[in-house]
Amino acid sequence: MSHAFAKFEYQERLARLRQKMNESGLSLVVVTNPSNYNYISGYDAMSFQNPQALLVSSEDLEPVWMGRGIDRGSAENTTWLSSGNIIGYADKYADNVPDHAMHAVADEIKRRGWNKGRIGYEGNSYYFSPQGFLTLQECLPDAQLVDVGVLVNWLRVIKSPREIEFMRIAGQIVAKVMGVAHDSLKVGIRENELAGRIMQAQAQGVGEFGGACPSSIPFIVTGEHAGLPHSSWTDDTIRNGSITALELAGCYLRYHGALARTFSVGEPSASLARLADTVQEGLEAAMAAMKPGVTCHDVWAAWQGVLARGGFKKNSRIGYSLGLSYPPSWREHTLSLESGREDEIREGMCFHIICGMFLGDGTNKGDPHYELSETVLVTKTGVDLLTNFDRKLIVKH
Amino acid sequence: MSHAFAKFEYQERLARLRQKMNESGLSLVVVTNPSNYNYISGYDAMSFQNPQALLVSSEDLEPVWMGRGIDRGSAENTTWLSSGNIIGYADKYADNVPDHAMHAVADEIKRRGWNKGRIGYEGNSYYFSPQGFLTLQECLPDAQLVDVGVLVNWLRVIKSPREIEFMRIAGQIVAKVMGVAHDSLKVGIRENELAGRIMQAQAQGVGEFGGACPSSIPFIVTGEHAGLPHSSWTDDTIRNGSITALELAGCYLRYHGALARTFSVGEPSASLARLADTVQEGLEAAMAAMKPGVTCHDVWAAWQGVLARGGFKKNSRIGYSLGLSYPPSWREHTLSLESGREDEIREGMCFHIICGMFLGDGTNKGDPHYELSETVLVTKTGVDLLTNFDRKLIVKH
Repeated sequence: MSHAFAKFEYQERLARLRQKMNESGLSLVVVTNPSNYNYISGYDAMSFQNPQALLVSSEDLEPVWMGRGIDRGSAENTTWLSSGNIIGYADKYADNVPDHAMHAVADEIKRRGWNKGRIGYEGNSYYFSPQGFLTLQECLPDAQLVDVGVLVNWLRVIKSPREIEFMRIAGQIVAKVMGVAHDSLKVGIRENELAGRIMQAQAQGVGEFGGACPSSIPFIVTGEHAGLPHSSWTDDTIRNGSITALELAGCYLRYHGALARTFSVGEPSASLARLADTVQEGLEAAMAAMKPGVTCHDVWAAWQGVLARGGFKKNSRIGYSLGLSYPPSWREHTLSLESGREDEIREGMCFHIICGMFLGDGTNKGDPHYELSETVLVTKTGVDLLTNFDRKLIVKH
Repeated sequence: MSHAFAKFEYQERLARLRQKMNESGLSLVVVTNPSNYNYISGYDAMSFQNPQALLVSSEDLEPVWMGRGIDRGSAENTTWLSSGNIIGYADKYADNVPDHAMHAVADEIKRRGWNKGRIGYEGNSYYFSPQGFLTLQECLPDAQLVDVGVLVNWLRVIKSPREIEFMRIAGQIVAKVMGVAHDSLKVGIRENELAGRIMQAQAQGVGEFGGACPSSIPFIVTGEHAGLPHSSWTDDTIRNGSITALELAGCYLRYHGALARTFSVGEPSASLARLADTVQEGLEAAMAAMKPGVTCHDVWAAWQGVLARGGFKKNSRIGYSLGLSYPPSWREHTLSLESGREDEIREGMCFHIICGMFLGDGTNKGDPHYELSETVLVTKTGVDLLTNFDRKLIVKH
């Protein structure tokens, strides 16, 4: 298989990680976030339901991939690592009973003499459990385990030219997907049928670029679960007079573009129209404020100013950086567009700016709900829109 | 919203959990596995990318749901809990920076006076991180934290009559999905297009029963990633002479049926035909062996006997119990059909028996690969097949 990136791009990322490790005096990092070990090694498979890790030494050595034996071939197929650095553990560890798979990882660390010094772990990675952590701690008594948090995620916030290509493709995919949703959404279609058409379009992709499966399901927010942003779709029918918010993604080689639009089936009420106008103005104010040198807080504040003038209130943040990811989320868990966050916006970052007026956070019971978003790339002077789709409240008859 | 189950069914489950808690002297369990808190409370949303927990006291009190503020409405909408027991935490915890969301959970535990005694946590749940665990430990100094492992998962292994209805629907969905895959798979279709048709069929469901999104992507194992069981689909084209293994699921209200079949595009080689016959015979031997009173090992051994007679070898297990689940896996993480596992098979359990001859585990480079599976319900005397689809190697021209 050809890798998603040239070997030198992975090695450049590895060099940046090593630099961070040296700054923190880390002798080894046990990378357990699937997006992070994809970033460094290229590993791509939906196999993270079993513990996996990439061992990155501060020495000038190739990283070591570890996972379940039956997934070893996926590492051979998708990483740039040599065979001797791809280690499958025995199947008895598959359910971590009686012993946790991190026993096997610790054994490999010892075998390579890496069991001393300051060893970093990702303390808030989705697929690294307390048992896994405690197992490492128990099996590596000569090491000092250090939580590196989202240190590796931070390496991912500035996109390379090739990553930007992938982000553009992902943005094109989600715009096309929203078009399919637009054409499908009408009175009488069931939510699950709408979801099916959306997912087919997500996989279809654009032109020669086939879509991958996004890190979250299509969020279809309507009917009995109107205003509830992460609710599961149901098999209820879309009714006349309903408001449907869609938050969707397009995914190409695990890079994501995300896009939210809201549909009124039937003539919108005056209050919905006013909400839609305010949210659009607020989103556009946030986009206009985003450029190198300002902070995440500044972008949020631009939105907040419009919202307050319109007499609306919302507490939750309005977006985050995104790019490469695996389920269950397409966000990077680093930059967050919220009050008080002083992280600086820089060229090459990508954001999903999502202005969601949710039930209990933006709207009250009985009020209209509304979601509107764009995925953008930060340029030298502002932002470049990656998702091209009419930004107004969409009325379907 | 009507819940998936009647309130008394949730309360019966809660009573069984309390009994286990009393046996272990636990005063509280912090349930963090989404399938487990769905099982007890009914909570259903794809919101587990942020920390969530269900607090279950050993006292005769309603459990308490906790999650991000914007998801509070989903708990109102899908659980049987009263409003006062549905707690949303502030949005500053959304990325667990600077403080982990488990601070808010610990505060609620203290507010209710539950911060003493033996408090259970799920040490290997996908969405409960080391940081979350260490935060609870730090914030609850008067408690003794106890890893309860998959204690709650074990409550789920015997299905109720209504759960069995859902499993039957899920089985019907996946059989229909496999039919769509069968009709779509031909020379020239791209893997991603095949995935799109499969996902559309998964969402469509059967008849009035709309499908939910299964816990894993459709596994399309072919071409450059032949024999690699959890590999991502690509946008490569299906070629003549290729072998494609599909492992798919159908999902209804989060209950899963899973099914694997293998397709030869073009006339199969003699070695593929022989492998297919052996695997089918082995699967059927395992199904014939499965009945109340035998062990997981016995079922595995029945398969192993056929395999050995055929001159084949495979180390990994051949299945697991399944039912209710959230991403990233549809297995229950309890019963496993493997060598040496002495857990007893009982009426009302459901299994995915999957005989996968993978690259490096069943087959070698250059050999044909093969997957075949069924989802079954254990009855009084044997098994009832939930997935009805022709079991032979499928040849497409």
